[in-house]
Amino acid sequence: MEISKLGEFGLIDRLTKNIKPENSSTVYGVGDDCAVLHYPDKEVLVTSDMLMEGVHFDLTYIDMQHLGYKSAMVNISDIFAMNGTPRQLVVNMALSKRFKVEDTEEFYAGLRAACDKWQVDIVGGDTTSSYTGLAISITCIGEAAKEDIVYRNGAKETDLICVSGDLGAAYMGLQLLEREKTVYYQQVDEARQKNDTRTLEELKSFQPDFAGKEYLLQRQLQPEARGDVVELLRQANIHPTAMMDISDGLSSELLHICKQSGCGCRIYEQNIPIDYQTAVMAEEFNMNVTTCALNGGEDYELLFTVPIGDHEKIENLEGVKMIGHITRKEFGAVLVSRDSQEFDLKAQGWDPLLKE
Amino acid sequence: MEISKLGEFGLIDRLTKNIKPENSSTVYGVGDDCAVLHYPDKEVLVTSDMLMEGVHFDLTYIDMQHLGYKSAMVNISDIFAMNGTPRQLVVNMALSKRFKVEDTEEFYAGLRAACDKWQVDIVGGDTTSSYTGLAISITCIGEAAKEDIVYRNGAKETDLICVSGDLGAAYMGLQLLEREKTVYYQQVDEARQKNDTRTLEELKSFQPDFAGKEYLLQRQLQPEARGDVVELLRQANIHPTAMMDISDGLSSELLHICKQSGCGCRIYEQNIPIDYQTAVMAEEFNMNVTTCALNGGEDYELLFTVPIGDHEKIENLEGVKMIGHITRKEFGAVLVSRDSQEFDLKAQGWDPLLKE
Repeated sequence: MEISKLGEFGLIDRLTKNIKPENSSTVYGVGDDCAVLHYPDKEVLVTSDMLMEGVHFDLTYIDMQHLGYKSAMVNISDIFAMNGTPRQLVVNMALSKRFKVEDTEEFYAGLRAACDKWQVDIVGGDTTSSYTGLAISITCIGEAAKEDIVYRNGAKETDLICVSGDLGAAYMGLQLLEREKTVYYQQVDEARQKNDTRTLEELKSFQPDFAGKEYLLQRQLQPEARGDVVELLRQANIHPTAMMDISDGLSSELLHICKQSGCGCRIYEQNIPIDYQTAVMAEEFNMNVTTCALNGGEDYELLFTVPIGDHEKIENLEGVKMIGHITRKEFGAVLVSRDSQEFDLKAQGWDPLLKE
Repeated sequence: MEISKLGEFGLIDRLTKNIKPENSSTVYGVGDDCAVLHYPDKEVLVTSDMLMEGVHFDLTYIDMQHLGYKSAMVNISDIFAMNGTPRQLVVNMALSKRFKVEDTEEFYAGLRAACDKWQVDIVGGDTTSSYTGLAISITCIGEAAKEDIVYRNGAKETDLICVSGDLGAAYMGLQLLEREKTVYYQQVDEARQKNDTRTLEELKSFQPDFAGKEYLLQRQLQPEARGDVVELLRQANIHPTAMMDISDGLSSELLHICKQSGCGCRIYEQNIPIDYQTAVMAEEFNMNVTTCALNGGEDYELLFTVPIGDHEKIENLEGVKMIGHITRKEFGAVLVSRDSQEFDLKAQGWDPLLKE
């Protein structure tokens, strides 16, 4: 159905009609000039992200439902990265004419799946049009007790540096999708040049074979915010001194923590957690898997530091790995390779404003 | 300077380096995964808007500084429309390659001018790239005591319908800008066809003559949120039963209030406040000035209802006009014309999703 058939308010009504706020902090959701929230005993956390078609996502790789899921999840991840609890989400989207009502419904289905997973209420937003492509802006609001909030600036010398899950898989998933796309268009081009209509017809139902690489695709297309790790840390009575989520790559994020905490760091290549599929894929692409883990980004794992006294507690935590420790600022930010060489960490993470 | 020279974090540092939070509710601003806010005794209000180049603004009419000002002001306006006080602003922007660092600085200068006017803190946001044009998403956060909040759904039969300021001027300002642009390009086309290089050279420094029409341009390019009116109402001890700001046009907004309050309305053409310049310009364009006021939009004046007992108090308020009253739902939404004919109000306000 054409979106213009419904108009702005018709579309918003349709997308939001079954949304019922679940959190006691949500006083009033969609439908007025503002949403109304109530946070008498907690600090309010606010984070916001913008995702542009062609820059942050490519709709030949990702469908609208996964895109909705991912858009919500990456913002929810920022709330967890402060040691908070996500509560509300505001969604702005601008759509060009090629999008139909059904596309927006799929996008909302994805958004809602992500929000339902963490009991987050969709409380508002703007739905409008765009001349070219799809633009998405999400704001997520959460809460934390003042004493629980973990900033990036609290890391201290000798603190242990930890990461959850594994790194580099989302990046390898993207490489895989890009390769399949390239191969596909090459085949289409060749068939066109030969006027091979039969192959062209077959290519319409082309399905790339991702068998054995499902984990990489899932990490790229359906990232998960690590609220479970935040909960594990709480249960283990571990309070990180600094924390953030890994969206741009481990190197870039570690340098943020070092800069804001006024310290250096020393991490060990052999300790960086890498999944088997990531390693195999890197081999296949002839890439250095550590480089992928350091600079790949989009893993949305948690990077945090804890006092050295928590060493044993961390060792007993499933899915969390110690990769190094915080040093004095003068020692810089250093990666120690498997053969004991030292390298300066550089922020080569993904920067959309450097993209050519 | 090219934005890619600075990269994302360099640009954000540059744009936000002198931003010092002023509000006690702003605990932590730009620089971490989230901003941290503190609202122990108030309700938190949240509103968000998306503005797309080519749809919501045309950079041949408006410069980056005015655009920044307007982007912030229209969101601040939504907080006032709930009878709240704006406190924080989150800014997302996506820029194509034609934008330079200086453009983003001008945009921020406008944003900050609007924020300074109402002591609003810029606490975060995302700055990224776009393949085509400029996309802006602003989220504004404010506060209100629970009992002070004015929703759209509280209008009651016999309530008086009031508007602040005057209507239709922003729309006439846009018409004026569009006419000048059309005239300009016609002249360029003609000169090109005649190969008239001298005229083409002269046209480069073409300055349209807006003398006597400054008010219309100002209303279009530099709208003001009516926090002053909210304050006046407080001082006069008037508590509106329903309120919203007029962004899409009086008709559309009144119908929102009627729908949400479950009532009808009756407004009088002769009472709709219209500025002299708006009337002159409508005449010049051979347009019905009432239609402009009803459907024009972008005035960002306040539309509100008050109990009929406040009649005298409202009469004494400068810059506020009573334009009609709330009726039972069965009577519909009616405009009574100067010659006492009755018309159904229709939502012909600006809807970006209906734009062809």
